[in-house]
Amino acid sequence: MMQLSASISSSSSPFLGQINTNYRTPRVSVSVKSNGVCKCVAATPQAPVEETAYTTKVSRNVNMSKLQAGYLFPEVARRRSAHMLKYPDAHVISLGIGDTTEPIPDVITSAMAEKSHSLSTLEGYSGYGAEQGDKKLRAAIASTYYGDLGIDESDIFVSDGAKCDISRLQILFGSNVTMACQDPSYPAYVDSSVIMGQTGQFQKDVEKYGNIEYMRCTPSNGFFPDLSTITKTDIIFFCSPNNPTGSTATREQLKQLVEFAKKNGSIIVYDSAYAMYISDDSPRSIFEIPGAKELTFHLGLSLDLASHSPFPLRTREQVAIETSSFSKYAGFTGVRLGWTVVPKELLFSDGFPVARDFNRIVCTCFNGASNIAQAGGLACLSPEGLKAMRDTVGFYKENTDIIVDTFNSLGFDVYGGKNAPYVWVHFPGRSSWEVFGEILEKTHLVTTPGSGFGPGGEGFVRVSAFGHRGNVLEACKRLKQLYK
Amino acid sequence: MMQLSASISSSSSPFLGQINTNYRTPRVSVSVKSNGVCKCVAATPQAPVEETAYTTKVSRNVNMSKLQAGYLFPEVARRRSAHMLKYPDAHVISLGIGDTTEPIPDVITSAMAEKSHSLSTLEGYSGYGAEQGDKKLRAAIASTYYGDLGIDESDIFVSDGAKCDISRLQILFGSNVTMACQDPSYPAYVDSSVIMGQTGQFQKDVEKYGNIEYMRCTPSNGFFPDLSTITKTDIIFFCSPNNPTGSTATREQLKQLVEFAKKNGSIIVYDSAYAMYISDDSPRSIFEIPGAKELTFHLGLSLDLASHSPFPLRTREQVAIETSSFSKYAGFTGVRLGWTVVPKELLFSDGFPVARDFNRIVCTCFNGASNIAQAGGLACLSPEGLKAMRDTVGFYKENTDIIVDTFNSLGFDVYGGKNAPYVWVHFPGRSSWEVFGEILEKTHLVTTPGSGFGPGGEGFVRVSAFGHRGNVLEACKRLKQLYK
Repeated sequence: MMQLSASISSSSSPFLGQINTNYRTPRVSVSVKSNGVCKCVAATPQAPVEETAYTTKVSRNVNMSKLQAGYLFPEVARRRSAHMLKYPDAHVISLGIGDTTEPIPDVITSAMAEKSHSLSTLEGYSGYGAEQGDKKLRAAIASTYYGDLGIDESDIFVSDGAKCDISRLQILFGSNVTMACQDPSYPAYVDSSVIMGQTGQFQKDVEKYGNIEYMRCTPSNGFFPDLSTITKTDIIFFCSPNNPTGSTATREQLKQLVEFAKKNGSIIVYDSAYAMYISDDSPRSIFEIPGAKELTFHLGLSLDLASHSPFPLRTREQVAIETSSFSKYAGFTGVRLGWTVVPKELLFSDGFPVARDFNRIVCTCFNGASNIAQAGGLACLSPEGLKAMRDTVGFYKENTDIIVDTFNSLGFDVYGGKNAPYVWVHFPGRSSWEVFGEILEKTHLVTTPGSGFGPGGEGFVRVSAFGHRGNVLEACKRLKQLYK
Repeated sequence: MMQLSASISSSSSPFLGQINTNYRTPRVSVSVKSNGVCKCVAATPQAPVEETAYTTKVSRNVNMSKLQAGYLFPEVARRRSAHMLKYPDAHVISLGIGDTTEPIPDVITSAMAEKSHSLSTLEGYSGYGAEQGDKKLRAAIASTYYGDLGIDESDIFVSDGAKCDISRLQILFGSNVTMACQDPSYPAYVDSSVIMGQTGQFQKDVEKYGNIEYMRCTPSNGFFPDLSTITKTDIIFFCSPNNPTGSTATREQLKQLVEFAKKNGSIIVYDSAYAMYISDDSPRSIFEIPGAKELTFHLGLSLDLASHSPFPLRTREQVAIETSSFSKYAGFTGVRLGWTVVPKELLFSDGFPVARDFNRIVCTCFNGASNIAQAGGLACLSPEGLKAMRDTVGFYKENTDIIVDTFNSLGFDVYGGKNAPYVWVHFPGRSSWEVFGEILEKTHLVTTPGSGFGPGGEGFVRVSAFGHRGNVLEACKRLKQLYK
């Protein structure tokens, strides 16, 4: 028998890891080299035949080759799987990738089931919806989350999730913008920027991509960057409550951020995917930061114009886009539903409305979120749905308290947790991948290494509060055993 | 009272058309010009106040500014809406944007309803799924559509639709590739290429973007391009059965296309979204075009290696990606589910597997299709689901016959229809937007103007066969009246 095996590079990823394929061919012994495309080496039966695989002449996208390793969360999942293979009998508990665990409230799933059934009826069937989302859902999002903030339904773009919208926003901005992000931050901001060609190469010494402004957020600055040290960029990604640190920017801090953006003419992309976890008076939306009042200021008047207006007073100086999601409120991580707010008044330097280009992207590169998911979203925003979502959020916040108390009792410096489902634990002087490995190996708990969120996350581990109560309690027991 | 109105450019689109907002402010009269940001002009009560809106300093993406007008189908929808406003009592029938109209078979919607309900239970709940899709669904797609073609489940990337995947593929390829597409063709190929910066400016004289190879498909070449006249490009988009012409490439033609791609080292992106409409022996997948046999040829042997192999024999010379969808088979235009096949053996010029980069895109820019839609997809591929999908396709094909017969009886040259839900009707020497307008104005029927699919579509109108039977019959009656 003769074996052929392709000499293409193998993958470090579990998925696609098995790129080399071996297969058996009839008992022949040939040596053929044909037109430079397929090189076969003579072989006796049973011996391997080498083959240089055919390649296209299409060059690999240089931006893709800049990316370091895989996307963080699949990498965490890979290590979890490897651990489970090594310890098949272990009860592995994941407080890692931020995946929701609690069932979706029945009022919401029933609406989705009903929508599903209705699609099999003549009256209930609908095909393509508006790419921007169902009108009723857009209106409900606008009134529920932005009721008094001057955002209306036509500013809302319903989507299949904030992560997907982040990429669509990057397509919108294109290759020639510069960006800043919190360090540490959700890796999709940086990775999508690399993919779009906005960055330089990865610089191993500092663990940063060239041409990205990393805004360091540490305990010493209260996890809010020192803006006086930050270079002007076109785009500023800002997430509050923050993933991964769990910290929340105050109203005063967000005012500073908005002022900073205005001074520089930047656009803020504000990620509010965890806003429902806020239990103090921190802003839940970047649009809470007054623009209308600044207009008053510019007019030299101290009147509150909005209170005299029969229409919601819209800020004339928009600097922000906001993206959010039902994932962490309603457990829609698998159902896929989010939204992005692009106010009509947000303008590029030539005066062209950003929303018009984003609308073109949404119409060309997307076809709307699933109509069933959208029916679920509408149910989320009913009075019963909102209460059910608050209950779910409340449950996860109880988990957070348990995790925070555990690490506190063990003497760790613990951050976040209060207004977010993430607990940010300091392991000073240690590699976060090493701590991740230690916790996994010794307790069968999956966390997320802080350095996966940027160099500013080194020495930290993110512990997610998404878990069944029993698992969270068991996890804390094991942590107390390990770090007692 | 004082009125402020922003002097930002207004939109030609109905959506976002109302960009200027007027609102009332208290009775004050001020003239302020503050730091170049907000220019307000003195006003007496009731008189307008002009304001130069604040703009960011972020430059508009130059690629976005290259795009001509809006995306085709929203533009058709806009004209339809305008017509309905003009004739509020008219029974407007849409054979335009290719939107499915028949209910989804119950076996499929029941599976989605069941999945929805299960998400409210502890046992049934699941959060993030694999970005590449549910393993069972990937396996079912591979075995149903590619059973004997050497494609396995790990080559399948489940998505929220072919249109979305086309954009993700463009992100994968990046800005420095060149592309070809059929002319006319589905506009997402060209528009996404423009957005990614692969093209030059739109050239009004020829109605083409620079740096795209338009492969003219006309009745005179049987809607298959004369490849001897086509310039080498990196990427070749090819759709068969074709949208909009309804033509289907033969096996012999696809062999020529694959040979052409191999000679040039190109990657074919094959759109098979209408493959289930094929009723003759035309290939349903680009992977039916032999690569394995070419290996035999290169070895100088005529043995069929595959028949001796315990594993499916995979072609070593992959040149193609295939994208497809449940939209037009199961009526999932609103549910959103599709897939893309990227064989592991498809390699960039440096030998790097294309699938690994596409996997990175899918993990970074996407989070998987809705789990409810995926449950529906799995039901589609059950024996009952497949039968139900075939029945739906059969129904639309009957519509197609009715439409083809109508235009034939009126003496038109009619193309497509046989293996596709689209009928391509020739109106020689006439502007297709003009014909579109004539049909809409005189019969209240919405079609799609051929020139919306590229300059090669000028003089044609696409008539979609997606419609209730009564509407299709009524539409044909009106057409017979108009063109008798």
